Amino acid sequence: MGVIDKQKTRRGRRGGSDYRPKIEQLPFRQPKIGFAPLELISEDQLEAIHLASLDILKDIGMEFISSDARARLKKWGADVDEATQMVRFDPQMVEETIKTAPANFKLHARNPQKTLKIGGRYIANGCVASPPNVSDMDRGRRPGTTEDYQNLLRLAQYFNIIHLIGGYPVEPLDRAVSTRHLYNTRDMLTLTDKAISGYCIWGKWVSDVIEMARIGRGISDSQLEEEPSLFTVINTNSPLKFDGAMLDGLIEMASRNQVVCVTPFTLAGAMAPITLAGALAQQNAEALAGLVMTQIVRKGAPFVYGGFTSNVDMKSGAPAFGTPEYMKTTIIGGQLARCYNVPYRTSGVNAANMVDAQAAYESVFSLWGTTMGGGNIIKHAAGWMEGGLVASFEKLILDVDLLQMVSEFLQPVIVDDDSLGLDSIVEAGIGGHFFGTAHTQERFRDAFYAPLISDWRNFESWQQDGSPQSWQKANKIWKQALEEYVEPPIEAAIVEELDGFIARRVEEGGVGVDF
Amino acid sequence: MGVIDKQKTRRGRRGGSDYRPKIEQLPFRQPKIGFAPLELISEDQLEAIHLASLDILKDIGMEFISSDARARLKKWGADVDEATQMVRFDPQMVEETIKTAPANFKLHARNPQKTLKIGGRYIANGCVASPPNVSDMDRGRRPGTTEDYQNLLRLAQYFNIIHLIGGYPVEPLDRAVSTRHLYNTRDMLTLTDKAISGYCIWGKWVSDVIEMARIGRGISDSQLEEEPSLFTVINTNSPLKFDGAMLDGLIEMASRNQVVCVTPFTLAGAMAPITLAGALAQQNAEALAGLVMTQIVRKGAPFVYGGFTSNVDMKSGAPAFGTPEYMKTTIIGGQLARCYNVPYRTSGVNAANMVDAQAAYESVFSLWGTTMGGGNIIKHAAGWMEGGLVASFEKLILDVDLLQMVSEFLQPVIVDDDSLGLDSIVEAGIGGHFFGTAHTQERFRDAFYAPLISDWRNFESWQQDGSPQSWQKANKIWKQALEEYVEPPIEAAIVEELDGFIARRVEEGGVGVDF
Repeated sequence: MGVIDKQKTRRGRRGGSDYRPKIEQLPFRQPKIGFAPLELISEDQLEAIHLASLDILKDIGMEFISSDARARLKKWGADVDEATQMVRFDPQMVEETIKTAPANFKLHARNPQKTLKIGGRYIANGCVASPPNVSDMDRGRRPGTTEDYQNLLRLAQYFNIIHLIGGYPVEPLDRAVSTRHLYNTRDMLTLTDKAISGYCIWGKWVSDVIEMARIGRGISDSQLEEEPSLFTVINTNSPLKFDGAMLDGLIEMASRNQVVCVTPFTLAGAMAPITLAGALAQQNAEALAGLVMTQIVRKGAPFVYGGFTSNVDMKSGAPAFGTPEYMKTTIIGGQLARCYNVPYRTSGVNAANMVDAQAAYESVFSLWGTTMGGGNIIKHAAGWMEGGLVASFEKLILDVDLLQMVSEFLQPVIVDDDSLGLDSIVEAGIGGHFFGTAHTQERFRDAFYAPLISDWRNFESWQQDGSPQSWQKANKIWKQALEEYVEPPIEAAIVEELDGFIARRVEEGGVGVDF
Repeated sequence: MGVIDKQKTRRGRRGGSDYRPKIEQLPFRQPKIGFAPLELISEDQLEAIHLASLDILKDIGMEFISSDARARLKKWGADVDEATQMVRFDPQMVEETIKTAPANFKLHARNPQKTLKIGGRYIANGCVASPPNVSDMDRGRRPGTTEDYQNLLRLAQYFNIIHLIGGYPVEPLDRAVSTRHLYNTRDMLTLTDKAISGYCIWGKWVSDVIEMARIGRGISDSQLEEEPSLFTVINTNSPLKFDGAMLDGLIEMASRNQVVCVTPFTLAGAMAPITLAGALAQQNAEALAGLVMTQIVRKGAPFVYGGFTSNVDMKSGAPAFGTPEYMKTTIIGGQLARCYNVPYRTSGVNAANMVDAQAAYESVFSLWGTTMGGGNIIKHAAGWMEGGLVASFEKLILDVDLLQMVSEFLQPVIVDDDSLGLDSIVEAGIGGHFFGTAHTQERFRDAFYAPLISDWRNFESWQQDGSPQSWQKANKIWKQALEEYVEPPIEAAIVEELDGFIARRVEEGGVGVDF
């Protein structure tokens, strides 16, 4: 197939011996499942989990460590105990209140071409979010810095299969906490043009980020409220506890009609019952409480049901991801979200310490669960390792490849006279070859997905090249992607306004919470 | 969780510092999917592929390089051209004739506890079959020997998740071809007690193996014909060619009511059209021709529809496996097999050169396809590497782990008052821990799947232990499994009869086909 190589050369950059073709990747598009998500448990079983979660909210209740949240819940009609901060919910009221959440909506990006459809059969992949550490195979594992943070953002921008900046791809620990959100958000808005996230850690922090999202898009406050432009995840402190700072953030986000995803982090056997049914009932109770909270703050506020129920290694207590149990809870989580007719957030996860077979199989098992389960937002889908403690440059590349493969799997199969191609069978002849047929020649360039990592050379060629493992190929690719990366265009006036806002807020001392 | 470690110690072997607990694995049982297999294409699309395949058989036909096969087809009513050996099929006759194949049946093993249900929602995993080479990380890649062959059989026997000896796990190249089948089959029958396979390379070869399967089970000829006890795969020489020796084997197998699986090896772009629809139409034509052939030989003979359509790397022509395209064709192949109401054979495959991330992700993507596609027999499911050129000891262990995970994923989720465990949520308390609850204590031992390979230690512990990759753990496990392996019991009289048969056939010169 020498013809193909020549074709590629003509397309790529030339430069003598250091010539290297550009990375080939899929165009920016949201994958969409063409089939109904898998119903792993029966409707009766689903109903039993739903009812158990309502029982939990009614009989045990949840702790809400925010007086603002408790006051709103009390006004709504919840049974609030100010002494214990416990809130108990009437089941019928819960079922009634959650109906106002939208089934789907758009999450607007600075670049309108990258605005995301959230809900239905659409998938949006988010990059890794929030690890304190970063690693690559050259420099090893280390605390995250601004340089790493920015480089991971560049990769998230570069690769089209990453649709959402799902959070800080690594914590830049060299940035002061009080103003970190300002500089981090500026980087998100300038180094990428994709939909972005903020953290709900304090109300003021959140309002800063909402304001920057507004400036970044160059729109008015009212347009921002019509067009959700910021995504956030609220993790509950399972079991059954809502953190105060996060609740204040949730209230700020929902009141501005921005996207709130409540994700209980219910590791079965640690922060939730050891049985999957029990852990899911608890997950569902906590998620429903969050859903109620958003709809009390603002009817119709965009909400995403988050599921993150996995198991722990009962020998050591270590969290496990990409396990059979994770696959099941991920798929059932989707069934629950569809019960409430809201979009569903899942995660692409693993607990490996390096980009070896384990990292790959746990990640693909995760994706099997998220895809068949109808996940709409796949958080941590590129770069997450060690159960979230590390953002890995090589893992990000592996994940981009895996996500592209899932996306290609989800592309519809075409069956028509042209694709059936009986003429080519006649042309190839009995026992013949299809390489040379007209049917093949017309299609060979893009007939199949061309993976980034897979090494399909024969053993001898591979061995002569030093027997490279997958992570070694990934190591080369992220460096090349950073070289090829181009900063997306942005109006100078917008950057100026962002910088003016940051300067003012820095002068005010940021959020004043340094520790 | 020190309690668990003590429990394990009590169960395992003791021996001072070299103490090592026994490998924990799942019991022997066939996984079963509890949901309908995925329908990736519509009924109309399926019908279009079916009709295209009938057109291929009618208009182009297939070459049958066996005068016996052609004579039978001619008698049946096919349009046979003796000069070109081409056989053309009337579509209606095809549709009528294939109806007699059974929807499901049993494949009998020497140990009745390991007799397999073939068809419906049941899965049977076969070990790697037929590579000329073998590899392990100590001795590297090398041509297969009797020692390797026997050791791989021992591993296939040892691990319960391998249900079927799907062929020679490696070719023992040190055994003479004329008598290799005799010694190989003896090994299968004595080193394992699972269901076995034979190769359809010559009629006489096949009849030897059928006779040995009969002796191994200690049954009569008539009981053997009532109880299929041997499995074989016939690959077509795609496009549209049936090898003579394989046809003679097929006729011998079907006439004795043994299980024939016809598997076209239709690599899109090489031996089949580059489009998936076209490649599947050709696969289907070839499989249907094989199905017709078995039913002509013996109405109701057990038949398995084999699908093995993958793609090639259009840059190099190298075959690719575990790709998005493979997932699609694997799932659609299942839809086709269900059209004809026969069991479906697929494969767990990859094209990696070592047990790295690629080996893992290609394998899990394969399993995603085979599982969601309703595959009944998963060939090459443990140990296959390099697109079938190598049987890898480490890959076999990785695959055992992957297969066990799929099996656990397929175990039904229990939802009842006990599993919902609301009492444990009360017991743990708001923000509390579930490790110590009664609900956890009753269940922690087998609540979750305990993987063989996954390393869930934290980074520091893992690094202190030398940063082992997955393949290094796999390397230890296969050696331990071989140490723990126990030969299954067999009656001395049966071994004597097998040896007598072999001695006689060796004296006769085997199959007399040495080359």
